[in-house]
Amino acid sequence: MVMEDLRARCEAAGQEQLLQFWEDLTAEEKISLEEQINALNLTDINEYYRRTQTIKKGAAVDDQLEPLEPEVCGGTTRTPDHFLELYRNTGLEKIANGEVAVLLLAGGQGTRLGVSYPKGMYNVGLPSRKCLYQLQGERIIRIEQVAAEKYNKHGNVPWYIMTSEATKAKTSEYFQKKSYFGLKKENVIFFEQSTLPCLTFDGKIMLEGKAKIAKAPDGNGGLYRALGSSGVLQDMIGRGIKHIHVYCVDNILIKMADPVFIGFCVTKEVQCGNKSVEKTNPTEPLGVVGKVNGTYQVVEYSEMALKTAQLRTPDGRLKYNSGNIANHYFHIDFLADIVRNHDGELTHHIAKKKIPCVNEVGEPVKPTRPNGIKMEKFVFDVFRFAQRFCCWDVLREDEFSALKNADGAAESTPTTCRHALYALHYKYILNAGGRFSDSTGSVLPEIPGHVSPILDETREKGYMNGSNADEASSSSDEEVKKSLVVEISPLVTYAGEDLEYLVSGNIYAAPLIIAASKESVGQSRIRKPSFIVDK
Amino acid sequence: MVMEDLRARCEAAGQEQLLQFWEDLTAEEKISLEEQINALNLTDINEYYRRTQTIKKGAAVDDQLEPLEPEVCGGTTRTPDHFLELYRNTGLEKIANGEVAVLLLAGGQGTRLGVSYPKGMYNVGLPSRKCLYQLQGERIIRIEQVAAEKYNKHGNVPWYIMTSEATKAKTSEYFQKKSYFGLKKENVIFFEQSTLPCLTFDGKIMLEGKAKIAKAPDGNGGLYRALGSSGVLQDMIGRGIKHIHVYCVDNILIKMADPVFIGFCVTKEVQCGNKSVEKTNPTEPLGVVGKVNGTYQVVEYSEMALKTAQLRTPDGRLKYNSGNIANHYFHIDFLADIVRNHDGELTHHIAKKKIPCVNEVGEPVKPTRPNGIKMEKFVFDVFRFAQRFCCWDVLREDEFSALKNADGAAESTPTTCRHALYALHYKYILNAGGRFSDSTGSVLPEIPGHVSPILDETREKGYMNGSNADEASSSSDEEVKKSLVVEISPLVTYAGEDLEYLVSGNIYAAPLIIAASKESVGQSRIRKPSFIVDK
Repeated sequence: MVMEDLRARCEAAGQEQLLQFWEDLTAEEKISLEEQINALNLTDINEYYRRTQTIKKGAAVDDQLEPLEPEVCGGTTRTPDHFLELYRNTGLEKIANGEVAVLLLAGGQGTRLGVSYPKGMYNVGLPSRKCLYQLQGERIIRIEQVAAEKYNKHGNVPWYIMTSEATKAKTSEYFQKKSYFGLKKENVIFFEQSTLPCLTFDGKIMLEGKAKIAKAPDGNGGLYRALGSSGVLQDMIGRGIKHIHVYCVDNILIKMADPVFIGFCVTKEVQCGNKSVEKTNPTEPLGVVGKVNGTYQVVEYSEMALKTAQLRTPDGRLKYNSGNIANHYFHIDFLADIVRNHDGELTHHIAKKKIPCVNEVGEPVKPTRPNGIKMEKFVFDVFRFAQRFCCWDVLREDEFSALKNADGAAESTPTTCRHALYALHYKYILNAGGRFSDSTGSVLPEIPGHVSPILDETREKGYMNGSNADEASSSSDEEVKKSLVVEISPLVTYAGEDLEYLVSGNIYAAPLIIAASKESVGQSRIRKPSFIVDK
Repeated sequence: MVMEDLRARCEAAGQEQLLQFWEDLTAEEKISLEEQINALNLTDINEYYRRTQTIKKGAAVDDQLEPLEPEVCGGTTRTPDHFLELYRNTGLEKIANGEVAVLLLAGGQGTRLGVSYPKGMYNVGLPSRKCLYQLQGERIIRIEQVAAEKYNKHGNVPWYIMTSEATKAKTSEYFQKKSYFGLKKENVIFFEQSTLPCLTFDGKIMLEGKAKIAKAPDGNGGLYRALGSSGVLQDMIGRGIKHIHVYCVDNILIKMADPVFIGFCVTKEVQCGNKSVEKTNPTEPLGVVGKVNGTYQVVEYSEMALKTAQLRTPDGRLKYNSGNIANHYFHIDFLADIVRNHDGELTHHIAKKKIPCVNEVGEPVKPTRPNGIKMEKFVFDVFRFAQRFCCWDVLREDEFSALKNADGAAESTPTTCRHALYALHYKYILNAGGRFSDSTGSVLPEIPGHVSPILDETREKGYMNGSNADEASSSSDEEVKKSLVVEISPLVTYAGEDLEYLVSGNIYAAPLIIAASKESVGQSRIRKPSFIVDK
């Protein structure tokens, strides 16, 4: 009876292939498969698929694309200093008030990077050997401190971390092992995004085994559903959070809870906002922010025709140049409205993938070409529900360097990330009045080019000896000799502030490493340069 | 008697240390050293040194720096198409008339790249295995052809190549071995830049051996002296050359005798011009073009304070953003005037170096730190003599990707050069109406991001099997699988022109290689994609 009911439901939904191996299954397997099917809303899944098939493609989106209105745009390089200061103070005040949270999208694994663990655990080879998670956690600690010093009030910035089935256990175990990088455990909140079944190109749910449905995470836009189902939205409301900074794990320069960005969004009184970098190369794989049919949208690079991407304004810039770097601001009211009223309206995007499955006789198959689709929502798809929106352009060299590929690729590698951080920290030192010398003791030019500033006997092997389990990557001796290696702990400075009293008037031979006294620098194997600050 | 005269001259010049080991020398060595000293103009050398010591440093240049006047500036991205066409046709006409030459500054060795031969011989690992020289030579052949087709007249573009003592023999032998890459031998003219003695920090000429003066090339600004002494200036005048495009060897995207740039300079009737790319990062090691004390100058990055480099205009761009990429235009009259009347006025720059020398007892020493200076002129130092000057901004992704470092560095490596060329050639195909497909045969988005478009069995080992002696570098199989490898021979297209009839409406699986029929593609080891054009 039960079986017949199940079959009837599958057939009604056109998904009867789910039961094609039913006769071969053990009793236990039958129960398991039935549970898996019952957990699905077949009507919804069919509807999701149907909608993906009716999306207008490429040219159509292009035709309706318009640039953002100038009045919703701002940017660090074209804003007078006193306004930057105003935005920053506004953001810091909200942090001190405990109204700001950060939300990390960390469902992805480091596949392209060549590792099997969550990307946030990756150590790009900084002298400190800190992984991405640690840099992020310490930036939270520091920005709380900066805000507290400014407003005499300590506010927590809770860190919400959305994992997937693949990353959840490893991520939470790692955080525990690392004592939450100095954060309070109750302010680090893990939750998990949902999954959806994988479909064949014509919309049939795929089986990974005779009794196992093939599933995949529902994209970073699965956030909204997960916020509701996991209780995280309620947790935010309960804590009095009003402003949420959403970001992706792979940007080594990420400014956690960036007070300038938050302050700009708050001042503009927007429902949501996007932080962008200038896209300079038409074929660069960055989505752009614009308006489509009068609503705010990120148009993915893959949805744009090259001729649209190549359009320029009279001053020679790209017409669509606000490149999306997965840095978003949401006001809590907007987020709550999305979760409660609009999540169901979002259309999934399809990604063709190689999906392990069973063949017609039930044998497992590892496909060598894409054989099915995953349905994914994108986190920025909710922009279209915003009436009040803003876009804040930041400098790429100050705020964006993504870790995507293993070393050897032409871009977005551990090496390029590491150097992006060194270059930024070098600039912090110079802007705070410090300088560097070469191996003869002569002061280097402020923009030094290619130098060999390091004494030959210097060896750099990581100052946090053994403190980081993952040693996948490390900067080479050669690099240390040829480059200006500068690393400042996030516990010492968040964005270059408060360094003058330490470095002004000083001249350093690189590598220069500035750490807080509580860090385990005592185990340093760097002979020359280490520089310790008592905070 | 002779010896006393020699000693007197050295003493008069304060360079008596040149003879400190005289008593130890054999008769032959004495003759050799005397000849070396006689070949020097000690008065000039002392004067050069004196002048380097009186240059105003850093802040001083900064204080007097002003941006270029808008009316001397132009650029590809902000010029209407009909003007671009006008400039291009103007340049092509000059080429067809035989009035255009290219001049390569190739005195440098591939030291930072880790090779001991001239950089131009380096093969960055393109499928064709072509080295930089070959790409350049073939671009000359092609642009001559484009101009000839347009104006029904074939003009030669002579290729003047300035080598140094270190690169001369290897370069000319290599060209001979490669049959001048299809150019006529008489249109490839080698000449050599001069040397100057190396000096101690206080201006004493250094000895490399007891009877051997330490010498070094006099910088790429040694061009002007060499043009005169080698007879190259006369050769140019004799051939009726009026417009000279000067460039450096290391830019894989170099547009040889770029007709658009030359046409812009000709239209503006300037004496000299500079091709620039937008400098976006203040600490990027690119000099900028500006005015100092009312004269046109390139201010080297090392001469700029960070605060000056960080200045921005109200629209957020860097105030000094015309980044020098060593691409210059000279009118022959201006060049002749410099060579005949102004070369002596140029002040040398000093570079601190590790200079092999002898110690006080005459033993050879390999210093581990800079112990002396080389005196160098810069090619752009003559800009200050120009009353009529222009600056032409081009897109970095179309025209500039420099080979400076070995793979493993964060930038300017064989890998980044290779990918810059692939990306540009990919754009050529798309703009000519071609598209690419993935391994399932589906058409890829025009901006494809990160894809695996390659069939597993494809292997790429270079289609010009054995045609290039240097196999230092080659793209990996992994790369070919993960990237859109597209290489079009310069013999087929110079800058994307004339591809429509070949590719429009076609869909390719990468790697796509387009070669002219005369190239040795018959030996291809690429199984799938090679695509041959009969020119």
